[in-house]
Amino acid sequence: MFESAFQSFEDAADGAAGPVRLAALRQELARLKLDGFVVPRADRHQNEYVPPSEERLAWLTGFSGSAGTAVALQDRAAIFVDGRYTLAVRGQVDVDSFEPVDSGETSPSDWLARTLKPGARVGYDPWLHTQGQAERLAKAVATAGGELVALDANPIDAIWRDRPPPPLGRVVLHPRKFAGESAARKCARVAAALKDADALVVSDPHALAWLFNIRGSDVAHTPLPLGFALVPASGAPSLYLDPRKPGAAAKKALAALAELKAPDALEPDLAALAQKGRRLLFDAATAPSRLVTLVRGAGGTAEVGTDPIALMKARKNDAELDGARAAQLRDGAALTRFLFWFSQNAPAGGLTEIEAAQALEGFRRQTGLLKDLSFPTISAAGANAASPHYRVTTKTNARIGRGIYLVDSGAQYEDGTTDVTRTLAVGRPTPEMRDRFTRVLKGHVAIARLVFPKGVSGAQIDAFARAALWRAGLDFDHGTGHGVGAYLSVHEGPQRISKLGATPLEPGMILSNEPGYYKAGCWGIRIETLVVVEPRAIRGAERETYGFETLTLAPIDRALIEPKLLDDGERAWLDAYHARVRKALQPFLSREEKRWLAAATAPL
Amino acid sequence: MFESAFQSFEDAADGAAGPVRLAALRQELARLKLDGFVVPRADRHQNEYVPPSEERLAWLTGFSGSAGTAVALQDRAAIFVDGRYTLAVRGQVDVDSFEPVDSGETSPSDWLARTLKPGARVGYDPWLHTQGQAERLAKAVATAGGELVALDANPIDAIWRDRPPPPLGRVVLHPRKFAGESAARKCARVAAALKDADALVVSDPHALAWLFNIRGSDVAHTPLPLGFALVPASGAPSLYLDPRKPGAAAKKALAALAELKAPDALEPDLAALAQKGRRLLFDAATAPSRLVTLVRGAGGTAEVGTDPIALMKARKNDAELDGARAAQLRDGAALTRFLFWFSQNAPAGGLTEIEAAQALEGFRRQTGLLKDLSFPTISAAGANAASPHYRVTTKTNARIGRGIYLVDSGAQYEDGTTDVTRTLAVGRPTPEMRDRFTRVLKGHVAIARLVFPKGVSGAQIDAFARAALWRAGLDFDHGTGHGVGAYLSVHEGPQRISKLGATPLEPGMILSNEPGYYKAGCWGIRIETLVVVEPRAIRGAERETYGFETLTLAPIDRALIEPKLLDDGERAWLDAYHARVRKALQPFLSREEKRWLAAATAPL
Repeated sequence: MFESAFQSFEDAADGAAGPVRLAALRQELARLKLDGFVVPRADRHQNEYVPPSEERLAWLTGFSGSAGTAVALQDRAAIFVDGRYTLAVRGQVDVDSFEPVDSGETSPSDWLARTLKPGARVGYDPWLHTQGQAERLAKAVATAGGELVALDANPIDAIWRDRPPPPLGRVVLHPRKFAGESAARKCARVAAALKDADALVVSDPHALAWLFNIRGSDVAHTPLPLGFALVPASGAPSLYLDPRKPGAAAKKALAALAELKAPDALEPDLAALAQKGRRLLFDAATAPSRLVTLVRGAGGTAEVGTDPIALMKARKNDAELDGARAAQLRDGAALTRFLFWFSQNAPAGGLTEIEAAQALEGFRRQTGLLKDLSFPTISAAGANAASPHYRVTTKTNARIGRGIYLVDSGAQYEDGTTDVTRTLAVGRPTPEMRDRFTRVLKGHVAIARLVFPKGVSGAQIDAFARAALWRAGLDFDHGTGHGVGAYLSVHEGPQRISKLGATPLEPGMILSNEPGYYKAGCWGIRIETLVVVEPRAIRGAERETYGFETLTLAPIDRALIEPKLLDDGERAWLDAYHARVRKALQPFLSREEKRWLAAATAPL
Repeated sequence: MFESAFQSFEDAADGAAGPVRLAALRQELARLKLDGFVVPRADRHQNEYVPPSEERLAWLTGFSGSAGTAVALQDRAAIFVDGRYTLAVRGQVDVDSFEPVDSGETSPSDWLARTLKPGARVGYDPWLHTQGQAERLAKAVATAGGELVALDANPIDAIWRDRPPPPLGRVVLHPRKFAGESAARKCARVAAALKDADALVVSDPHALAWLFNIRGSDVAHTPLPLGFALVPASGAPSLYLDPRKPGAAAKKALAALAELKAPDALEPDLAALAQKGRRLLFDAATAPSRLVTLVRGAGGTAEVGTDPIALMKARKNDAELDGARAAQLRDGAALTRFLFWFSQNAPAGGLTEIEAAQALEGFRRQTGLLKDLSFPTISAAGANAASPHYRVTTKTNARIGRGIYLVDSGAQYEDGTTDVTRTLAVGRPTPEMRDRFTRVLKGHVAIARLVFPKGVSGAQIDAFARAALWRAGLDFDHGTGHGVGAYLSVHEGPQRISKLGATPLEPGMILSNEPGYYKAGCWGIRIETLVVVEPRAIRGAERETYGFETLTLAPIDRALIEPKLLDDGERAWLDAYHARVRKALQPFLSREEKRWLAAATAPL
């Protein structure tokens, strides 16, 4: 009935070739007189989604997770993954070739410091590591008496015969009506923010997309153009982008803004600036060690710090917020149509996680405006929902039975990026499920209702999402919220609601509000909406005060709520939210859907 | 009627001699071929209260605050103080000699980096700066092209003719019944906690007091014995303490535990260990740069990190908690007698802040067990209460009129240290006062009632004390709570409730719970009690869960509460607390005081 255009449910992982590929790598390393090599799951921009040409870790080991590192020595090899993947990795890689290691306990650096023999030469590809990562590795290798060697070419590429070519995703202009600010003005703002630096090296493709008002299609789920830019304190910026990517209109607009250059012009340009003694600012989170080393080696100053674009991009302007609201309305209607469909089809049993994910994608495609999903849908029944990062594949695909079904999904529209989680009861939920769901809801409402002064960071408010769970001796092991981009990444920094979120929350920042609860091996709950920080006028206020506007519009399953656990303020918030959802979405729905929504959003 | 034994209300600050003393210092610097000198308000242990012999900053400039730094150059001099003192400093120092600088805007390092001429030689006394402080200074001086010079003798001491001798406060044993653990066992625990280090240099006198179960009287308000110790990973510790301080019994007990040595044996001992290539652990917060440099210069390894004693000391054992409860009961009764006295004497008008502070000290001395006040009482009427750190002197002493009176005070008893703030209405409070007081109370109760899992830090919960103020566009500019020692410092780390409090809260940690609100120029509110982290048994809990036991026992002024603003849970907490206060304190009170307390603690 439905099919998916933007997500695959295949488990591409195949570790069978691991032993042969590892042997080939070792031969190549021997040729290069190296005793080992580090293989991160990374491209040149530290992207969350990387193009197929950069999937070296998956090719070598079979591991398909979104984060991990392998280290190959001549006599041992290990793969380091975090707690999300410590189980899965054993089913994907050949564990006789690659010893699985929990990176939360032992990092690749720790392991190298303990394992290497004195005199060992360990190679790494300095395009794929930030300066901080490279320095940690170098220190660890030196501790063991070895030497870390930056390689000019990646040895995997020498042995990976059918390696895909780098992506040539089309680059288009992001219309001014959605961007809300001209690229020229953005470039001027960035140049003015450089302080001591002579130029900024833009290495984060999200920053590149924002700065030049362009979007690309080099990776899945995020409309990124892979490339670099150089923004000098005065004068025109340079944009290093494969000339085959932009079409004629985009090329013309970009040429008016910047010097368009081929990607391989970046290194000579940086070297020339460095030779003049210039001070260049690099983004610590994404800039490749290769470029930092080049500048320092050529006599320039490389300041590895914070790209000022990150904070500018995080504060959405009015046009971006209008776009977000329009996207949320459209997306909320699609999700609500799915919720109705689910209510009709799930109770009979037999529906699978993949069918549900395909149905939801189908409703989103019916809007006619869907550009992509913002991430692979988490469609999780029963125990699968207990894994916050579960991804359904044909191997794991479960039937949705009585109990709880969790769906965490999002879309990319040209006017905005969405991310929403709803947890649904199938059949009559147990009192425990209702208790837990209601505590999660109390946390969600506490964040939604919070009012706070300027200067407050996400770290300071994260616990409000947890207090009701804490009171019962419960908690959840992820942050309460991440930043979200404007037709960009669904995971955007620096804003976040987490004990690690040191950035003050400012008007225009979009964040998720997604507390959860996970009963290991049984079921899981998460309630997620996107919110935006907005100024609040309060009579008698002595501080500049902010609150959250809830952007996401979709009903929260009343069957899972235990009303006794809500206080008057919480209940009033929920009823008002549901009234707003009902009123906003009705125009998009059929008569049947409307009737269902009216019941789903009735006052408690 | 009352008088004070443990606090002075004189303002010792006198900047009149500043110009002459600065001239003498400059002459001395010229003799030493120095272009400048840094004068911190610090002793060799970075103590909060320092002995008179270490008050070099006050002697030179007249500034009597608890934190500040002067920098004297040949042609300019500046004094750096934080926001608490930016006003007061102008009344204390000769501003033609010492330019006052807000250290929150410009640190001494920033100023030096900007002001120094290339080639300048700036001296500092490496006993009075930690390694981190010294490195920051050195970097700033180097930025300006100058050189930072560690001096063997402090040039102030050469010109301060009547400088008092170092203190010789008597050192006594802290009885086992209060300490709850033998010093021998503590020494063994510390030795076992050293990991890679061959020995720990104990530089924090609070740690010294805790480790050896001793108390001293070298500084005001905190029973500290000034000295150092060396705890090797194996073998007996060495205790460097002036031999005139301990009496015969203490000497005998200490000699059984440690090698007793004169303070000037410390440097040769460290040098000898360093020459053997030993690795020594120093406390980053208190260890003098002088000792770190000595060890590194002599070939040893100096690891500047965290003294493991800090966390051991923070987690009070059962004996210490029993002591704390006994001390709080005694202290609560004394404070409550004062509150009754105040209720009888304040409404007529005419009472001064000093008289009130003296009266309170009097009630505490009547317990017969008062060793000291734990800090100078903050006795603040009207606008004075708007300064959270106000200290009353004969110059500021205000009459207590209608409105608000705030009293923040504490005591040192052998079984415990107290710290409590109550805010009292004199006459009928305004609706605004009641609104603000009730919001502060809501924050106070939110912390008191909070339940949270193991691993949660003070940073994560601080905002619960603020949410009710935030909702009205208000806030307060200090942390919610600091750690408190067991017959030790009233400000103890690492535990704290503050956005900077990264240490997980653990059972046995004592903290203050003291939200406030300050209406600049008008009045101030603070409600402070001490709490201790305790384990909580919760049915069905999946995490180890903690909560707070409130230790302080004294009524909270009902006249300032607007009951409409409290929810049922908050009201129930307050009524239960008041019932507990009433029951616990009655045995200590006269019939009149009892009658007053019954009304003061009646249900809302």
